[in-house]
Amino acid sequence: MRQSQLFVKTLKETVKDEKSINAQLLIRGGFIDKLMAGVYSYLPLGFRVLKKIENIIREEMDMIGGQEVFLPALLPKANWLQTNRWQYEEMFKLKSRGGKDYSLGWTHEEVITPLVKKFVNSYKDLPVYVYQIQNKFRDELRSKSGLLRVIEFIMKDFYSFHKNEKDLDKYYEEVKEAYFKIFKRCGLEKQTFLTLASGGTFSKYSHEFQTITPYGEDQIYLCQKCKLGLNKEIIEKENYQCPKCKNKNLKIEKAIEVGNIFKLMDKFSKAFKFTFKDSDGKEKIVLMGCYGIGLGRLMGAIIEVYHDSKGIIWPKEIAPFKVHLIQIGNERNIEEITEKIYENLKKAKIEVLYDDRKEKSVGEKFTDCDLIGIPTRIIISPKTLEKKSAEIKKRAQKKIKLIKLNQLINYVQHNF
Amino acid sequence: MRQSQLFVKTLKETVKDEKSINAQLLIRGGFIDKLMAGVYSYLPLGFRVLKKIENIIREEMDMIGGQEVFLPALLPKANWLQTNRWQYEEMFKLKSRGGKDYSLGWTHEEVITPLVKKFVNSYKDLPVYVYQIQNKFRDELRSKSGLLRVIEFIMKDFYSFHKNEKDLDKYYEEVKEAYFKIFKRCGLEKQTFLTLASGGTFSKYSHEFQTITPYGEDQIYLCQKCKLGLNKEIIEKENYQCPKCKNKNLKIEKAIEVGNIFKLMDKFSKAFKFTFKDSDGKEKIVLMGCYGIGLGRLMGAIIEVYHDSKGIIWPKEIAPFKVHLIQIGNERNIEEITEKIYENLKKAKIEVLYDDRKEKSVGEKFTDCDLIGIPTRIIISPKTLEKKSAEIKKRAQKKIKLIKLNQLINYVQHNF
Repeated sequence: MRQSQLFVKTLKETVKDEKSINAQLLIRGGFIDKLMAGVYSYLPLGFRVLKKIENIIREEMDMIGGQEVFLPALLPKANWLQTNRWQYEEMFKLKSRGGKDYSLGWTHEEVITPLVKKFVNSYKDLPVYVYQIQNKFRDELRSKSGLLRVIEFIMKDFYSFHKNEKDLDKYYEEVKEAYFKIFKRCGLEKQTFLTLASGGTFSKYSHEFQTITPYGEDQIYLCQKCKLGLNKEIIEKENYQCPKCKNKNLKIEKAIEVGNIFKLMDKFSKAFKFTFKDSDGKEKIVLMGCYGIGLGRLMGAIIEVYHDSKGIIWPKEIAPFKVHLIQIGNERNIEEITEKIYENLKKAKIEVLYDDRKEKSVGEKFTDCDLIGIPTRIIISPKTLEKKSAEIKKRAQKKIKLIKLNQLINYVQHNF
Repeated sequence: MRQSQLFVKTLKETVKDEKSINAQLLIRGGFIDKLMAGVYSYLPLGFRVLKKIENIIREEMDMIGGQEVFLPALLPKANWLQTNRWQYEEMFKLKSRGGKDYSLGWTHEEVITPLVKKFVNSYKDLPVYVYQIQNKFRDELRSKSGLLRVIEFIMKDFYSFHKNEKDLDKYYEEVKEAYFKIFKRCGLEKQTFLTLASGGTFSKYSHEFQTITPYGEDQIYLCQKCKLGLNKEIIEKENYQCPKCKNKNLKIEKAIEVGNIFKLMDKFSKAFKFTFKDSDGKEKIVLMGCYGIGLGRLMGAIIEVYHDSKGIIWPKEIAPFKVHLIQIGNERNIEEITEKIYENLKKAKIEVLYDDRKEKSVGEKFTDCDLIGIPTRIIISPKTLEKKSAEIKKRAQKKIKLIKLNQLINYVQHNF
């Protein structure tokens, strides 16, 4: 894409009313815009990142048999009454002109449970794995920390339905693995730890995926031996000891919760009388699990981990573009050569943002480039052309390399 | 995909409380589920169709320079006050716990106009083309006709910003062409006509794209000479005469509005004081156009046009799968051969739904196949295997063909 065409521009100044690093850099870089407290628009660059995260999640969820659906955001009161959650205080409620009571979905057990029930009669119809990626709403009194705690958010919510606990337990482990694959592909492998949390009324534990960063708003106790995390809810109950390896050497770390998974057991199937006929002829209750990831929050967490004083440093797989091609100087030969490289990069299916802006100074171009944080920077300038070369630099490194123009595409394909 | 894995099942019975053909067939075929009046869930097959429509629209919008964003559904009162639309009766309103007034978006001029304004100062920053694909909400008193008139709907809304009327007019024509490409790819080329509608306060006309079908809820007057449509709003004003070719031979047709485009002119830019510095140094008002397509309504319109007494007949490009592979008989050799064909179709990147259900009769499989409406049916049975062949039939035709197994993949690739 040509940067001159991008309708959004970067901001030089610090953004008022935003304390978090992720909001500062995402707004200044032109990835998002704040409509009001806790509510953001995704602009073209941010939308590209969002789609990459969405595709990673979709691929991994499909890989474990998930079937994608798209459920409404507007939900009927009756369903919440059935699970006793109509009074949930963070739920937005509204009325139609005709006097009907609706809420905005902040989770979808109340829709997916009766929906799947319609199609399941026998043990042969189980298990069922179903998910969606959709905007959700939560009436946060204090939305803060940029994309980490918002009122409207995009979430992947996955629900599984099982005939017995063994089947649920086995699948729960598969989802755990899929989650680690997602966080790995998003660049958070080293920082993200499985963390025990309270399981509510029905299970001993639920699990959070916590990404360690000094800017995290959660606090976890990380076992220095087996690397299991424990959250604040349960550390006392566990007597400040790792329940897995019994180690007492736990380090307090600041972290961001980037995912959570629950065994819901029969909490919702009971409320909706969702039973099935088992192979022994008996009518039994269906068991459920649910598995969430907030896409915006994940994006925010990535920024909190991957940035420096100059801007964002996107991990490769979720970067809005792979290459930032920068033309320095508006002389005709420079433009011609850079245009040709731009076309060749596109032909080679390398996603490229081409800074073809004529009125910007070298300094402004470099500042924007560091702020936007595309993994690879390629510069074409009178100086590099003297050596029939382009200058290549990774955003995350200081090392600069000159590569001959006729080897450039090949080099980028194989080295980045 | 294996049909045995699909958690949704078809329904044999007519659906109560749904009068429209699209709702009947989409619900019975397992494409959608009704959560409440005017609010539907998209199930795996319906989601696949939705994504195909979305991708067609995205490709055509990108082709005319559209930059994709994702705006919030939750909107602040202040923005509606600025355009005097806070009292719009079909808008859902809600309050936060903290007493803030929000609405749910049914259109997004109130967000996109001040957003684009932030980045546009000079004529050099124009034009801007921006769009999103997102769920919207409208407090319909009488939602009806299945996906044609709903409370929550998925919409593509595109906004363009221009420095003068000439530029807006020119782009408006480009969008028209892009719209016809979209409807052509969705199989509605022959049935869809550009139709004049009222332009509101600021333009003489706006334009609707009306798809003619006996089940349409709109009525248009179609010029029998130049094929321009006129809607009911303006037919009297035009004295029952085509304003383009002056012909008076107009035929009344029932139709479904599948898209509409407006020249907004300065209606919203004025409200938000959105001006720019022109090349002559003068500060001028920005002119706008907006261009909508409802994805669910388009899906519904396609069903209204493409069905018979047995079920849906999907146009190729938006079908949930290209091939419905049906195994008849559970004998081992039949299963082995069908499994192999399934794998080979997938390897050849032909999207295939494989009816591998063991407990279903031949009759049930055929009934489901016709109801779901995938364009090409391939049958493997003891009878076809006697001739080392598969039976191929298009959903839209009666003709049946036997194709040798070793030529099957090649035949499908080249003939469907």
